[in-house]
Parts: sequence; C-alpha cells; structure tokens
Amino acid sequence: MSTPGQPVYNRVALIGLGLIASSMAHAMRRAGLAAEIVGTARSAETRDITREIGFCDRVVDSAAEAVKEADLVVLAVPVGAMGRVAEEIAPHLMQGATVTDVGSVKQAVIEAVGPHLPTGIHFIPGHPLAGTEHSGPRAGFAELFDNRWCILVPNGSDPAAVARLRALWEGMGANVEEMEPDHHDLVLAVTSHTPHLIAYTMVGVADDLRRVTDSEVIKYSAAGFRDFTRIAASDPTMWRDVFLTNKDATLEILGRFTEELFALQRAIRTGDGEQLFDYFTHTRAIRRGIIEAGQDTDAPDFGRVGQHEAKRK
Amino acid sequence: MSTPGQPVYNRVALIGLGLIASSMAHAMRRAGLAAEIVGTARSAETRDITREIGFCDRVVDSAAEAVKEADLVVLAVPVGAMGRVAEEIAPHLMQGATVTDVGSVKQAVIEAVGPHLPTGIHFIPGHPLAGTEHSGPRAGFAELFDNRWCILVPNGSDPAAVARLRALWEGMGANVEEMEPDHHDLVLAVTSHTPHLIAYTMVGVADDLRRVTDSEVIKYSAAGFRDFTRIAASDPTMWRDVFLTNKDATLEILGRFTEELFALQRAIRTGDGEQLFDYFTHTRAIRRGIIEAGQDTDAPDFGRVGQHEAKRK
Repeated sequence: MSTPGQPVYNRVALIGLGLIASSMAHAMRRAGLAAEIVGTARSAETRDITREIGFCDRVVDSAAEAVKEADLVVLAVPVGAMGRVAEEIAPHLMQGATVTDVGSVKQAVIEAVGPHLPTGIHFIPGHPLAGTEHSGPRAGFAELFDNRWCILVPNGSDPAAVARLRALWEGMGANVEEMEPDHHDLVLAVTSHTPHLIAYTMVGVADDLRRVTDSEVIKYSAAGFRDFTRIAASDPTMWRDVFLTNKDATLEILGRFTEELFALQRAIRTGDGEQLFDYFTHTRAIRRGIIEAGQDTDAPDFGRVGQHEAKRK
Repeated sequence: MSTPGQPVYNRVALIGLGLIASSMAHAMRRAGLAAEIVGTARSAETRDITREIGFCDRVVDSAAEAVKEADLVVLAVPVGAMGRVAEEIAPHLMQGATVTDVGSVKQAVIEAVGPHLPTGIHFIPGHPLAGTEHSGPRAGFAELFDNRWCILVPNGSDPAAVARLRALWEGMGANVEEMEPDHHDLVLAVTSHTPHLIAYTMVGVADDLRRVTDSEVIKYSAAGFRDFTRIAASDPTMWRDVFLTNKDATLEILGRFTEELFALQRAIRTGDGEQLFDYFTHTRAIRRGIIEAGQDTDAPDFGRVGQHEAKRK
C-alpha cells in the first residue's frame, strides 16, 4: 500500500472537499491510486484552502466541470445535498464512469441520486466508517481509513465496477464489506447515529442545568462526559441530514434505547444492585469483543494516535 | 513535582489496591510525598500482585493492620464497602490521623463512614476525577492525576489538615477544588454518572438487537459507538455502587435527559432540520470550551497518551 503502483482510476473527481474527501486525496496519493485528482467545493474559501494545501492536482469551480472525463466521481457532500449535486453533474458524466458517495446513510442517497443518473453509469454507494470530530479540507490525513471498514452498497451494479472501487478503498487502507442499503442504515443507526444523538442530548442537558455552571461541567468533564462532547462536536450539517434521512431506523433504535434506559432507571430507583451489576458486567464483555476485533486497542490512547502517528513516521 | 522533596505524610495506608490506589502509590513515589506506603486489599491475589509489582513499601493482610500509625488513611474501595472498612479500622486509627477516600459519590460516603470515626480524626472525603476503563493493581500509573481535578469535601474539617491533603494531591499532579458534598454529587451526576449509565444502556441495546449481529456491531463500531463501549467497560462493582448511592441526583439528571431526548426525537419525526442543526451547533461550542479549559486537547489522541507518554520520556 505504501509504494505507488498502477493507478486504479485515471481521473478521480472529488465533489466536496471536507474531512473525508481530503483524506481520500491524501490516501490515493500515498498509494498512487489515481493518475489525476480533480476537486471542487461549493465554497470559494474551501477551494482556495485546497489549492494552498495542494492535495488535488486541479481544483475547479463547479461540479459539472470536475466530473468531465472522470472515471470515478465521489460525492462527498452532506446527504441532503446529494440529489442537487447529482442533478448538476448528470449531463456531464463520462459514459462508463463510476459514481460513488461517502454519505452516512444509504437508502436516502440511492433515492436522491439514482433517478438523476443516466444509463451507462455505475452507481455504487459507499460509506467509509472513519472520521474525527474535525471537518473541512485542513482536517484530512492519509491514514484516516487504515484498517477501518468501508461499506459498499452495489445494489445490483456491474461486478467489475464494484471490484475496481473495492480495489481503490483497499488501496487507501480500508477493509471493504458489501451490504444491502436498508441493512446498512439499521447497523449504522445502532453503531453511530443513535449514539451521536444521545451524546448531543447529554451535552445539551449538562449545559442547560442552572445549578451546575458551564465552567463546572467543563472543568470536571474528564470522566465519561468528555467522550460525549467529542462525539457531539461533529459537523452539525452532516448530522442534521443523517437524522432527517435515516429517520425510521434511528427512531426504532431510540425506542429500544429509552425502553432499556427506563428499566435501568427503575433498578436504580428500587435499589436493585444485582440487576445493575449484571448489566454492567455484560457490557464490559462487549467492549472486549471490540478490542479483539481490532477496531480499537487496549492501549491508553485507544488506538487513535498510535495508528495515525505510526504511519507518519 | 518531579524531584523528591519533604514527604507530606509519614505513613500512608492504602485500603484497596485498584487503579486509583496503585496510581496514587506510583504518583507519591514519583514526588517523594510519603515516607512509607502501606497497602492492603481484601483479595489475597491482589495483595500478591501488589507485592510483585512493588509499588507499596509493605503489603499487609488486614485494613486494621494497615492503618496502624498511619497519618493518612485512604479508603480506595467501592463506595458500598466504605462503611464496613471504616468500622473495621476505627479502633486502630492513630489520633490526629487524616482519613480520606476516593469514592465517586460523597454524600453517601460521609453517611457511611462518618459515624464510625472517633473524635480526633480528620475526615476529609475526596474524589480524583481521573480513571481509565481498566481496574486492578496492574492498571495504575504515576501520571493518572496529572493536570486532572481532585475534589475535596472538607465538610468543616480542620483547615491545616485540609491544606496538607491538598498538598499531597497537588504533589501527585492534580488540581484541587473544594466543594460541598451534595453539590459534588450533582455535578458528577451530570458529568460522569448519567453519561456512564447512558453508555451502558446503548451498548446493551446494540447487543440485544437480533437483526444486527454482535459481530456487525463490533466490526462497525468505529464511529461513536466505540467511545460508548470504552465507557461501558468500567468496573461493574464500582458503578453499581455509584448508582445505588447517588440515586437522587442521577434520577434527576436522567429525567432531564429523557425530556430533552424526546424533544430531539420529535424533531427527527417531524423533520425539523433547523432545530437539529441549532442543537448540534450549540453542543459543538461546548466541546470547544472543554478544549480551551485544558481538560482535553485538540490532537487526535484527545490528550490521553500525549500526556501520559510525555511524562514517561
């Protein structure tokens, strides 16, 4: 992965230049996966920053221009903007090109983007399960996807086109898995969307409580709350769109969550220590499973910088 | 702090030898804060491991023996065990000694321990806001308290005795704040106890969902859920006791939390993107406050290993 080989795509167009797209550019360059990377973003400031950092070969002013002769087009905009972008680029797509995205929900993206794309285009939605709470073109780094999962949703696409996109993600360091769109949305509602909503809520409650000052909340956040604030610092636009577009699965999991929370709340109220102890013992075992699955480490930095820094050395 | 000076206490007795007590021993040795450290734990295995690691000068078989001639006694056992330990050590305490604890709740500890202690003993409850999800004598390290807060609850104790305990904690690297017991319990219900209960609940929900397999949950835990599992891996006994003994404050904050969660849930159901966006923008600002307050860093390792490793170099 670290030595450049044969490019997987000739020209990759990145539409949107935030954390994910900029990290993809760095990762593609690291492994020589694209002969040329063309980028664009709606904001002139973002385009200027991208030119300054230089992670794209060319930065152009419109999505329509970016996709010209691109054999891979990556939609890396908020989910709510995907339909508009698809409509804009559709007349300019090269026959045989692959269009993918990196959105956090898949059913809604398929519904928003699919109808705009002409025949002869391979539409293969994707979702790299990687990120930090930072956003924008300065936030990207080549190691973001290393040993993380990328879910592809072929949804009946041409197997050769899927294999090629898989090769790109694997070249960028990710492990690739294929999934049906509705199952993807349910899995992510559990592992990502609902946890984010809960973290946002808890941070809001803490801020709202008059008898505990903000400065107290901030000072004493080391235990537990700090992890919540990190989650709750993610990009607001992205998360608004996630909840609006993965409504059903999120509401289902939220329902399960409140049911379960009420049971634990009752155990606290009635002083049922045995139930609490059993519950907490069980969740500890789940954490061990995650460490064993290699999605985290047992080290005190929880695998974040360890992985990141190791690659930079 | 890093060069040994005059010891603050002549003999420190550590009752309980888990993450916090072992870290205290390492931190006291780093700065020469105790002329002698005596440790004990109920489990023979824990005592043996402590002897093997060697972070105490002496390991004895009972709490009664450990406190003999100690001018500082640290109760580092689960909150639910504090009363029993206090009863056991009371007849053996040296006149003028200070008794403190490191429990996560303060009102309940005062009620459990206070009545057992004879006059002439300074009882100054404490709570270092530091920890990892690991427990036991092998989990300790000298840097655990560096730049973290330790809350002392003097509750009318002798100012000179409080100043001395403060000097110990500052010598171990912590910043010390004084607080009333009930306010402590409310602040911690917000910043630590409720977030932990929520994390436990979410991890339990994920595990319970039949249509999403455990292995899927584990594989795709990178975003959001991973932080929850880390929180939910903490010591079950400790957390059971926290919720049983900080019942009122936890139930109050849980009530606020569910109220707020229902409001966001309704925003999702009705498609109110503006409300979601505003909420998420607001919580992002709170995160910035925490970074500015120095309880975390903006670096990708979130200040965990950065701080830890820097001290080791």
